[in-house]
Amino acid sequence: MTTEIPDLPTEITPQSQDFGRWYIDVVRRAELADYSPVKGCMVIRPYGYAIWELIQQGLDRRFKATGHVNAYFPLLIPESLLTREAEHVEGFAPQVAWVTQGGNEKLEERLVIRPTSETIIGTMYAKWVQSWRDLPILINQWANVVRWEKVTRLFLRTTEFLWQEGHTAHETAEEAQEETLRMLAVYKDFAENELAMPVMDGQKSESEKFAGAERTYSIEALMRDGRALQAGTSHNLGQNFAKVFDIKFQARDKSVQHVWGTSWGVSTRMIGGVIMTHGDDGGLILPPKIAPYQVVMVPIMRGNWRETVLPKAKAIRDQLVARGIRVMLDDRDSQTPGWKFNEWEMRGVPLRLEIGPKDIEKSQVVLARRDTREKAFVPMEGLAAHAESLLNTIQQALFDRAVAYRTEHTTETDSYATFKEVMEGRPGFVVSPWCESATCEASIKTETQATIRNIPFASAPVAGKSCIKCGEPAKVHAWFAKSY
Amino acid sequence: MTTEIPDLPTEITPQSQDFGRWYIDVVRRAELADYSPVKGCMVIRPYGYAIWELIQQGLDRRFKATGHVNAYFPLLIPESLLTREAEHVEGFAPQVAWVTQGGNEKLEERLVIRPTSETIIGTMYAKWVQSWRDLPILINQWANVVRWEKVTRLFLRTTEFLWQEGHTAHETAEEAQEETLRMLAVYKDFAENELAMPVMDGQKSESEKFAGAERTYSIEALMRDGRALQAGTSHNLGQNFAKVFDIKFQARDKSVQHVWGTSWGVSTRMIGGVIMTHGDDGGLILPPKIAPYQVVMVPIMRGNWRETVLPKAKAIRDQLVARGIRVMLDDRDSQTPGWKFNEWEMRGVPLRLEIGPKDIEKSQVVLARRDTREKAFVPMEGLAAHAESLLNTIQQALFDRAVAYRTEHTTETDSYATFKEVMEGRPGFVVSPWCESATCEASIKTETQATIRNIPFASAPVAGKSCIKCGEPAKVHAWFAKSY
Repeated sequence: MTTEIPDLPTEITPQSQDFGRWYIDVVRRAELADYSPVKGCMVIRPYGYAIWELIQQGLDRRFKATGHVNAYFPLLIPESLLTREAEHVEGFAPQVAWVTQGGNEKLEERLVIRPTSETIIGTMYAKWVQSWRDLPILINQWANVVRWEKVTRLFLRTTEFLWQEGHTAHETAEEAQEETLRMLAVYKDFAENELAMPVMDGQKSESEKFAGAERTYSIEALMRDGRALQAGTSHNLGQNFAKVFDIKFQARDKSVQHVWGTSWGVSTRMIGGVIMTHGDDGGLILPPKIAPYQVVMVPIMRGNWRETVLPKAKAIRDQLVARGIRVMLDDRDSQTPGWKFNEWEMRGVPLRLEIGPKDIEKSQVVLARRDTREKAFVPMEGLAAHAESLLNTIQQALFDRAVAYRTEHTTETDSYATFKEVMEGRPGFVVSPWCESATCEASIKTETQATIRNIPFASAPVAGKSCIKCGEPAKVHAWFAKSY
Repeated sequence: MTTEIPDLPTEITPQSQDFGRWYIDVVRRAELADYSPVKGCMVIRPYGYAIWELIQQGLDRRFKATGHVNAYFPLLIPESLLTREAEHVEGFAPQVAWVTQGGNEKLEERLVIRPTSETIIGTMYAKWVQSWRDLPILINQWANVVRWEKVTRLFLRTTEFLWQEGHTAHETAEEAQEETLRMLAVYKDFAENELAMPVMDGQKSESEKFAGAERTYSIEALMRDGRALQAGTSHNLGQNFAKVFDIKFQARDKSVQHVWGTSWGVSTRMIGGVIMTHGDDGGLILPPKIAPYQVVMVPIMRGNWRETVLPKAKAIRDQLVARGIRVMLDDRDSQTPGWKFNEWEMRGVPLRLEIGPKDIEKSQVVLARRDTREKAFVPMEGLAAHAESLLNTIQQALFDRAVAYRTEHTTETDSYATFKEVMEGRPGFVVSPWCESATCEASIKTETQATIRNIPFASAPVAGKSCIKCGEPAKVHAWFAKSY
């Protein structure tokens, strides 16, 4: 018995009517992803996968620039490895898929499909590391992982997802901490400069940290329905896994020591973040840097346009491509220009270029921005440079708009009454003093559904303030939100 | 209970002593891959993965140039989907891994980890295709697959491996056949021009074709122990999967028809092919186009070399890098130059550049080829261009040498006595007339261990010849070999 896949939606539900419905409509109508016959697992369609390829390239370039290399570790992990680190197994065992049979044979030991790879990678590092000269190990893996989720949503939470997971081993605690923060900074840089998605970087509370980590850091973005999205995490693992998996090295002083570890990851979930940061009732709005097509060209089909307009359009396309711009020339004659305008708007192409017989007479084209819907006549002379510059403007405008949205939807308050009031509806972030007790954190979550997203590095001082929940002296300003 | 991982070998067994041992020694000593705690599953280490990344880039570029796009389909396939195509399930069911539990719940229906994705992709295509306007669908997927293998060998046959699988759907039988052969030609071009690995392209016999295909084509390479390696396959699926998964479209004439399908794949096995095509007793020899480092620079550590030699070495490195050459400057002072020479030879770096104080005086460097071990003094003036040209020479020389090896190890014979004689020892290919009966094919396999690798497109005519086994009239010249 397989899961039925509903037909593709024909219309996109307005955000104001049902944001969750809007999201799924956009994902499916724009052909980013689709449901599959396997419960909770998605198909990433070519248009969505092209975004993922651009995300991969942008991240991989940054990983390599910071000295990392890629490798690949097995999908399947023996149960005995997973269970070795106590907190880790407690965190992950309830949500793993179990392989119990291979071919026609029942397995002696069950295998899990990796939910994350600390255990299998730790086992290998124990083999590979002998001396301080073998350190640091700076390895990243691009892989699929499986976590058995009860409630799933395309891109945001799926049973299987694609991600990268970095796993590093260091000589000292200081180096591991530097690495943990370095990679968090890489994620922030990537999210803000490529995805145009502003993120708050900070440390997770004890109750929200990764199972087996000493400290977990995250970047948190704000979606247009006022909910937060954790877009990436970086963990300082201390010596926890090193001790459990016996990853030891001879130090410079000849003593034998355990390595210090980190791990960090982002996933296809980022695509969900992009959709919900920038999209509107017309559909998707893609930041130029990760748009599979940055410019869509729609020729106006009048008279013998194939002889007059199309050759000129192709010449312009070649100029744009030569400048490194990704272009789709939509010359299908089965569809009207109006239909194409709507279709490519829905698919979020940042810039539309219209060209017809009259434009050619005047040696101009029409450029229409997806984000503002502004249209302008632009001379053909210098067009490629103009388009490139406009794409940069759009990239920046999307970021600025998202920052403004976040600012408008961030409330600082010391009053729990205000806190609760804000958390109804479409809340955004609420910044409040907190005593660092897990009890207060849990009560707030029960009463308001809000969780601590993180404690930002740039948190304002709390001297003299009281915990928003219990009234005891506060230790930090925490950022709360309802989240995905 | 997990599999014990033996220590890394310190020496490489000579090929003449034990080719199989030589292979594993090279793979592990050069840190291409390693055993893992999971039976039959390998770890691809950074140096091996860097080769895979270059292979991916070279193939992906070709796939996109031929109009294909990438997508991603679920890892897990419900049992009911796998079993729908009768031949397919018969071929794959004995070698799949079964997921029977998710989290704490026993699954109602078992899932298999994909051994290949025709069934899950076919299900989605049935949803996506309505009209001839939706065709062709030209999708490729980069993914991991699992096949439960009893006997495994790093890269060549592992329980989990990485591959790409193309899956296309077409309006007509002719288009599907064209696509099948187009992608086989892409594989041949890639294998010969990037891996410097000559391959014979042709059609598989009925008994060797893919489970569920109408026709299977392959490229077959010859390893240096005289065994053949199937390096890639391309399948014309006819309408088999389309009928089973109900992939229908309204044709140009308004009739409703089933699509015509193809699928094609190559895997990390190709890396094994490269190793066994080019390597020698010194270790790996990598073709420049897929070498993670094309040039290794070893400074001669005399006197105050860090002040005199190293700055010059760095300047040369920058010149090489500026020309697009991948360079490793090995300036570790914990190792001697002699140790480094051996180490990088073993790791197969095509070109070594030595530079010492005397070279700098004479404004020259030493260049040493890995393939021929020739050393020459080369002036610094014009060095980058010289190195680039030499890398091209090495690429071509490796291919030529492999072609010569194959020619020497290909025997044409009409006599079964000769056939059997050749098949003892290190046979290579034997080309013989065959009647196309599966019975003869099976008898030959039983008696000699040789299988039909394929029937080459460029097969010589067989008019008047008799089947090497039964003496009945032959229909084709088949290429036989013992194989991996």
